Amino acid sequence: MTRVLVQRLAIIGAGLIGSSVARAAREKHLAASVVVADADPEVCERVRELGFADVVSQSAAFAAEGADVVIVCVPVGASGAVAEEVGPVLKHGAILSDVGSVKGSVLDAMALHVPAHAHLIPAHPVAGTEFSGPDAGFASLFENRWCIVTPPEEAHEAAVEKLCALWQGMGANVEVMSAQHHDLVLAITSHVPHLIAYNIVGTAAHLEETLTSEVIKFSAGGFRDFTRIASSDPTMWRDVFLSNREAVLEMLGRFTEDLTALQRAIRYGDGQALFEHFTRTRAIRRSIIEQGQETAAPDFGRLAAGKPKHEQS
Amino acid sequence: MTRVLVQRLAIIGAGLIGSSVARAAREKHLAASVVVADADPEVCERVRELGFADVVSQSAAFAAEGADVVIVCVPVGASGAVAEEVGPVLKHGAILSDVGSVKGSVLDAMALHVPAHAHLIPAHPVAGTEFSGPDAGFASLFENRWCIVTPPEEAHEAAVEKLCALWQGMGANVEVMSAQHHDLVLAITSHVPHLIAYNIVGTAAHLEETLTSEVIKFSAGGFRDFTRIASSDPTMWRDVFLSNREAVLEMLGRFTEDLTALQRAIRYGDGQALFEHFTRTRAIRRSIIEQGQETAAPDFGRLAAGKPKHEQS
Repeated sequence: MTRVLVQRLAIIGAGLIGSSVARAAREKHLAASVVVADADPEVCERVRELGFADVVSQSAAFAAEGADVVIVCVPVGASGAVAEEVGPVLKHGAILSDVGSVKGSVLDAMALHVPAHAHLIPAHPVAGTEFSGPDAGFASLFENRWCIVTPPEEAHEAAVEKLCALWQGMGANVEVMSAQHHDLVLAITSHVPHLIAYNIVGTAAHLEETLTSEVIKFSAGGFRDFTRIASSDPTMWRDVFLSNREAVLEMLGRFTEDLTALQRAIRYGDGQALFEHFTRTRAIRRSIIEQGQETAAPDFGRLAAGKPKHEQS
Repeated sequence: MTRVLVQRLAIIGAGLIGSSVARAAREKHLAASVVVADADPEVCERVRELGFADVVSQSAAFAAEGADVVIVCVPVGASGAVAEEVGPVLKHGAILSDVGSVKGSVLDAMALHVPAHAHLIPAHPVAGTEFSGPDAGFASLFENRWCIVTPPEEAHEAAVEKLCALWQGMGANVEVMSAQHHDLVLAITSHVPHLIAYNIVGTAAHLEETLTSEVIKFSAGGFRDFTRIASSDPTMWRDVFLSNREAVLEMLGRFTEDLTALQRAIRYGDGQALFEHFTRTRAIRRSIIEQGQETAAPDFGRLAAGKPKHEQS
């Protein structure tokens, strides 16, 4: 049985994640009232048509005023500006959170603007698809996905528990860790994989035109799903790389060193080194399957819990 | 209506691809008799149990003798040795083909052993899964997949047509090109993607133990499907990289140059360069969708046409 956890839930930004939070909160009756704000009037209009919010506004401050929980669902580069806008209207005991893929820089950017009587508790649901906008969201996006909550050291315990309960109510499994540790783990599990996917698709795009068209034609040999990742929202990912620069550069450095060693093995025909490397990586795969982190339908962690309407067939 | 195209079809090597060819040929009645050879007695025993061959033998020469079409389905590094074994027994007008992911080196390694009265016509079905062995194959693996046929310049036209018809009979779309061109296209669409997937999984495996376990736990953010690719058969992929060295090193060089440029943009905070790169790659994705090379269930080109039994749920 779910229960109303929040009287007024404000969601700032009605993209894939924001609109999924709104849908999940309504479907699971987690909030008495769901208020959605988006700076783009066309998005607001579409949210009204889709009908997943009780109140729709272009003003983040209007949405946040009187809210028990405010979840900022904008690209991480914009979260500081949103915090600046909503900070002054946050009520006593309000929770201000976000959904960004980077946590250290977001915490820094938002903390300045949060009054002492409110609680800043950043979070990151590890879920998404390569689609964007209010039409792309769906209520089951977070089911059985991890949501990582990164409270600052001095965080109010009851507020952390309330935010965790909200994400659990949306079906997520919650893990609490420091923002810094989050950023390191996500650099290798998500940020660098996205960067190399963007990169190889870019490399293919630079080939002579005839070859590029054949690359598209014969993309099923492995390349294709890199293009899926590499069609994710450019603004969001630009901000991720700029905001998690240190950890991404650290992991990218290791990746490049390792790739250079494989390249060298290929150049000098060292079959034994290649074979050993390719055998070791199987163990990681086995662990993922053992821990139930794999689904029968491989999907880059995107759609296992449900599909956006336009992908259903 | 399908018709019997081949009297005696010999398949050398009963792994994922070989066992799928045998199953497809039987299910679609493409061959009057399907003979399967595998050097491993345990594999032969399993093939008998699975029942997708009319005759099973440990001897490639026995299987190839009297066959109209012999398809070598072994890792590309072993195809020369198999050609040496079957060459002397090939009957007049027999077609000798293979399924390797590299064509230039395979052509070189096999051609030496093919008598003048037989026809060597290499081919490469761009299909597979990360599973190996006779249990992993299934009859629909090639449906709606490309099969690239790479006849040598002096190839016998009717023989090329017969091989193409056989693959079309298994449901594949056939494209004819030179071995050299094939190797360049596959280097970027398949070989380099596999190498970087193997590489990032290896990088994660080198992290300190605690971090590695968290990487596994939070692998849904993009990393997970790289591990799927990186659990493909190590022997097959070692041979691919050793056999297609020039093209792989060429494409890997371009990949690394491009990655270095992205890394530099991250280091110096060049958001505009990142945004432009991430926007360009979306166009490639659109082309793939437009050309019907994408399926609703992203699967790295592996399972769209069917699933091996142990993956069905």
